Parts: sequence; C-alpha cells; structure tokens
Amino acid sequence: MTTWLDVPADHPFGVTNLPYGVFSIDGSAPRVGTRIGDHVLDLGPCAEKAGMESYAVWSAPTLNPFLALGRHAWSSAREWVTELLTNPARRDCVEPHLVPVESATMHLPFDVADYVDFYASEHHATNVGRLFRPDSEPLTPNWKHLPIGYHGRAGTVVVSGTAITRPSGQRKPPTEESPVFGASARLDIEAELGFVVGGATSLGSPVPVADADDHLFGVVLLNDWSARDLQAWEYVPLGPFLGKSFATSISPWVVTMEALRAARVPLPGQTDPRPLPYLQGEDTADGAGTAYGLDITYEVEWNGTVVSRPPYRSMYWSPTQMVAHMTVNGATLRSGDLFGSGTISGPDKDQRGSFLELSWGGREPVTLDDGSQRTFLEDGDTVVLRATAPGPGGTTISLGECRGTIGPAVHPQA
Amino acid sequence: MTTWLDVPADHPFGVTNLPYGVFSIDGSAPRVGTRIGDHVLDLGPCAEKAGMESYAVWSAPTLNPFLALGRHAWSSAREWVTELLTNPARRDCVEPHLVPVESATMHLPFDVADYVDFYASEHHATNVGRLFRPDSEPLTPNWKHLPIGYHGRAGTVVVSGTAITRPSGQRKPPTEESPVFGASARLDIEAELGFVVGGATSLGSPVPVADADDHLFGVVLLNDWSARDLQAWEYVPLGPFLGKSFATSISPWVVTMEALRAARVPLPGQTDPRPLPYLQGEDTADGAGTAYGLDITYEVEWNGTVVSRPPYRSMYWSPTQMVAHMTVNGATLRSGDLFGSGTISGPDKDQRGSFLELSWGGREPVTLDDGSQRTFLEDGDTVVLRATAPGPGGTTISLGECRGTIGPAVHPQA
Repeated sequence: MTTWLDVPADHPFGVTNLPYGVFSIDGSAPRVGTRIGDHVLDLGPCAEKAGMESYAVWSAPTLNPFLALGRHAWSSAREWVTELLTNPARRDCVEPHLVPVESATMHLPFDVADYVDFYASEHHATNVGRLFRPDSEPLTPNWKHLPIGYHGRAGTVVVSGTAITRPSGQRKPPTEESPVFGASARLDIEAELGFVVGGATSLGSPVPVADADDHLFGVVLLNDWSARDLQAWEYVPLGPFLGKSFATSISPWVVTMEALRAARVPLPGQTDPRPLPYLQGEDTADGAGTAYGLDITYEVEWNGTVVSRPPYRSMYWSPTQMVAHMTVNGATLRSGDLFGSGTISGPDKDQRGSFLELSWGGREPVTLDDGSQRTFLEDGDTVVLRATAPGPGGTTISLGECRGTIGPAVHPQA
Repeated sequence: MTTWLDVPADHPFGVTNLPYGVFSIDGSAPRVGTRIGDHVLDLGPCAEKAGMESYAVWSAPTLNPFLALGRHAWSSAREWVTELLTNPARRDCVEPHLVPVESATMHLPFDVADYVDFYASEHHATNVGRLFRPDSEPLTPNWKHLPIGYHGRAGTVVVSGTAITRPSGQRKPPTEESPVFGASARLDIEAELGFVVGGATSLGSPVPVADADDHLFGVVLLNDWSARDLQAWEYVPLGPFLGKSFATSISPWVVTMEALRAARVPLPGQTDPRPLPYLQGEDTADGAGTAYGLDITYEVEWNGTVVSRPPYRSMYWSPTQMVAHMTVNGATLRSGDLFGSGTISGPDKDQRGSFLELSWGGREPVTLDDGSQRTFLEDGDTVVLRATAPGPGGTTISLGECRGTIGPAVHPQA
C-alpha cells in the first residue's frame, strides 16, 4: 500500500500506521488529527469537505466521542482515511489540511475515565517481589491465576512533555524510628503500554476474552512515574497511592489495535497453572489466539542513553485477558478508560523497565553515556520511552514517544 | 430561622439543611434541585425567574458545573436559597417550582471524577486486621502516621436504589488447592461517608489542612459494597480491585459542609504518635480545629432491622487531613472528585459498619427482627444507610438514605 504523499515507504508513520491524536496550532481549538509522515492531517475539516458528516466527532477536543462509536465505526474510519491517502484523486481533499508536525502542539488525546494499572510482567513482578519483600516468595500465590491490577488516579494522567514535579510525602528510611517528610529520594519510572478503551458497557455485563477487541481501541506508551520511598511506606495493606498519583505520562498518538494486527504473537505460556476458563483464549487463524501477546520493541532512554530494551512479547497476560478480568465482576467499561500493562521487564538485566530493577534497589548504579552514574532520577533528568512494532504488509510502525523531565520538589520540607 | 412553607421546624429537611441533588419528573431532563420538607425545589427556573443568571449551572444534568464555582459561590447560593425560603415576599418565585418528593426521580448527583476510599476508623482497621491477617499486628505500622487510602472505580458509583448484582469472580477457599470461579459467597457492605470535592487545583499545588474546606462541598452516604472472598484472594500486593469495583452506592442528596458546621467536633485523639506537621490541624474558635471530626449519627438497616449505629465522631482522621494527604505529592483535585471515609466502626459490637465485623468473619450470625439469621448478604436482601447530624440553630438535619437490594449473580459459573 503506497500513499500519493511524499512519504517514504519505510517511514514509521507511514500509511499503515495512522494513529489518532489531539492537536492545536498557535492556540487554536484542539481537535483530532492523524499523523502521516511528518505531517498531521486535520481530520474534521477534511471529512467535512468530503461530506462525511459522521466524522463530526473529529472536531471535538478529545477522542472520547470517536471512542464512543465503537469497533465498526473505527474500522470504517480507518478504511476511509486510508483511501484518502492512497487515492491520488483525493489530493484536493487532503492537502489543505496537512500541518507540519513541528508546528502542532499535542494535547492529552482523551479524557481519562477510569485508569487501571496491571502488573502483567512475570520478570518485573519477580524482581519487585525480591526487592520489596525479600523474606517471601517473590510472586504472590495469586499472580499466575489472575492479572493483578488496581485503580490509579485518572486526573493526573498527562501528555508527553508535561513537566514532572518531584513529589514530596512521607517515607520511612530503615534508619529512622518514625516516618519523615520530604521530597522523594527514590523517584523512578515504569515503562508500560497503555490500552485505550472505547464502547461503553452496562453494569453486570462481563466482556469475554474473545469480545475484548470490540473495546480495545488502541495503545499509547505510558510512564507510571513512581516514588519508591513513598510507595514502600504507604502500600500495605491497600496498595500504592501517593507513590504513583502525582503523575502518569502518556504518548500523544494512539496507535490503533488494527494497525497492530501484524504484531500479535502467542503469549509466552500459561500452562502451569492454566488460568480459569473465563481467562482462557481461543485459537485464531493467525496463531496468536484471542489471548494474544504483542511483539512490540521498546526502549528506555535516560538523558540520551538507551538504558533498557524491554520486550513486550515477554508479558505474561494479554490485554484481552485484562479486559475480561476487569469486567468479570460486572464492572462497566467507559469510553476513555485507560489501563496500563504494568512495567515491561524481560528476563535480561538490560530489559528491565524500571530503574528500581535496573539499579537493583539502588545498589548497582547505571552508567550513562556521559559517564555520570544514576540509581534513581535526579532533578533535570529526562526520560524518553519509544517503541516500534511490525505493521501491516511488512512495514515497521512507530508508537511515537513519551517524554518527561523532572523538576525540583515544590516544598521539600514541611 | 423559619420558612414560610408548611414545613415543621423539626423537619430533617428543614430550611437549615438545603442539600443539593439532581432530579427529573416523568422522564424530563435531569437538573439540580434542593430539598425542602417533602418537596424538591427546581432551582434552575426559580433562579431564572429571579434574574439570577449566575445560577444557570443549576439547569445542568449534574452538580459538576456548580461544584466548579468554588466556596464563595456555594456560600452565596446558600444565602440566596435561604432568603427565598424564609422571605414570604418570595413565595411567587418559589411555589411554581416545588415538586412533591415522591414524584421526583433522583439521579447520580454528579459525574464522579476520581474516587478514593480511605480507611480512617481505627476500630474498623483493627477489626479487619484481626480477621484478614490474624498472625500480624492488627494495625499496620503506617496506620497512625497517615490516612491510608487507595483509588476505586469511579465509573461504577451509582445512586441509591440502583440494583446491585452479586459479583462473580475468583476466590480461593482455604479448603481448595487452587482458586475457583463463582458468585461471591461473602458479599458485604461498608457504611461510610463520601466527601464531594469542588474547585479544581493545578498539578504541584498541595492543599493544606487549613485550606481543605475551600474544596469540600458536601457529604453523601456511601455504601462500598465489598465481596470479601474476591478481595481476600486478590488484594496482596496491590490492594482491593474486583472485590470492590462492581458497585459503590451513594445517597442522592449532597448535604453541604456549611449545613454541617454545627456538627464539627474535635477528633478523638492523635497524640501517640502526633502526625507529621502537614497533617496537623490548627485551633479554631469552635474548638473543633481545622482537622475536625463530625458528630454524625448513622444507622445500618438490614431487611428492616437496624443492626448497627456507627458513630462518625469516633473516626481517627479528619476529612481535611484526607484532602491534605491526597494532594501533598502534588496531585490535583478536580470538581466531582469523591472520597470515602472508610467504614465507620465504633468501639462497640453494635457500632460496626460492615457485616464482616458484625458477624466476626461469618462466625457469629446476626439475627434480624423476622427471626432469620445472616452472616453475609443473601439475594433479595436490602440494606439502607441513614444518618443525621446537628444542624444550624439546634436543629437536626438528615443526610437522607442510601439503599440497595441484592440481585442474583449473572453467571455464577464459567
């Protein structure tokens, strides 16, 4: 498939990608666009000119109205946009609405309804278990029976590039009798994928694994910034709270599950134990099954040095299993729900998706290309997450990037 | 203060209460009303007739636009409504917009932004610790240093009267080697107050205890329905998820913090240990301090039998401390945020706010007035929460009721 635009066939935002985002130019109203090569296509006016009234949702300042339309509408829209960009007769409809990507300001692509974070990497959960609970089995007894998840703060999900203020709070160093207040001294990242949900369900209507794709719109890169010292002191017995709730960054371009169709792979294994029937997938013609993994290549860059390449295909649980689990108790899905995969860590040391793991609890510093050493984040540090995946027709598609720079704490003592 | 309406001075929804809710009549558009006696006053058209354009927010289908206006607007609105209802010259402005309460359908009063649940009763946390972790100290080491909280599912907060479907999911009975799937056999309630937040803050702007009242709009009764068997299996290490996320019921009338001014009391004690400075309150003229408790009398009715009277004044942490804690890491507040107090349990057995505690883990059945016995909820059971508080001028004001009836599981096996 080739486009009539001047976009090389191997461009990571070629015509087989077509992610959705929300952009503005020079303070204009934010609206929905897709990225093609080094341009953003302003979809609303383009659809209006073509008489496609059904796409008025693209003039909204968020993707939520489009997310609400559901799977059938998403597929039709992708077909229509693909036709625009591959049929030279559509040139007049498209060209006036192309904006150079460097002049577009990207916004949070959707209003986050509920934000859930899972914990789906066996390597990550094992590493963290060893570090946080050294006297216990690293994996809790439930870990291989269900995708463990918990709710996070939807209101502090921010778009890539938003400054991250170092959080303050309570922590209890092992040397202290009582907790002390101050800026987090163990500020970390978690490199994840975020799955974007569309098509609401009603109370008491679980979504089976095989139907989960009806509600999976697409994927963003997600950095679940984590203050490990706050988290370690607060998280027993009800889970992480302030150690996570100060900010979660996501990439601005939502790459659709359709664009990621060729990236589906079988999960690495769920044989011992087999999950309960409601979590089991079925076979599919592509061999990946309805409980599929994703062959997404990921990299974590710290102040310009790539410090890790976590392989998403090593994740234990499928996003479709996460949907089935999240709704099996009758809980609803809403358009705009976001769920994170949990930190992506592979089996090797240079595949770990958090600095807690990379520095083994702060005991083994990481050396950056400039010769400096790091355990946790310092003020002024910048982290960039990037990822690519096999796209349709042998292409490679980009998931863009998710970037954040750490600013100093607002009130380090109180 | 007396009203010209035919409402007895001791009516629990007298002119000193004036809660806000969202109602409709015969399928009309939902809009904001206040309750006076046995009527709902349709505030939008009443304000329009009086030329109060600033109250157009009351024609919205949720309280969110009103919540966004902040403390000063809430106070002015209360003054204005009070004047309407106490000045007989305003009769013509009010009477056409009174609706009998029995003909009004009540809706969820606001779109819930983030929902947080705290754990602020020492008696409840101690009881639950003994039941869930019998081999450890009942209170975790952090409990008296910070108000423990976690995020819940905002999308499944429902208004009083919504049917509650028994959730299904994984649980692991002690007699089984592996988890089994099925309908929850230990379905419970948690009797709480829910605090409704208004006036958004920006990232990195903690709200001190003394300023928290600027963001506390009012209070609802909250039933945090809990499937104890699902919860016990899933909650280590990241906290409750499906055991809670199927439904949380709230009462339809939001009683304002202004109406509850006379209910403020000192907290029962935070001397051993003293909390860190950011959680400490300051003295106030009323003796309650900025970290105040609330003298709210609560009752839990199970199929017509009052089985418990949890005293809110026994709660360890103040709602203002919860706001300060929740934002100390720089997290924002949004209009429509809701946070629960956690189960209210007093020191006595008949003051426990959950059936887990009342039946001591299911070992001591509760006998209802009809002679039947209960440990956890059975299909068809109805639970009603009610509460009252001292109101302005020696009155007693009602917080209304929060009601739910249990329906059978949708798919008890899979």
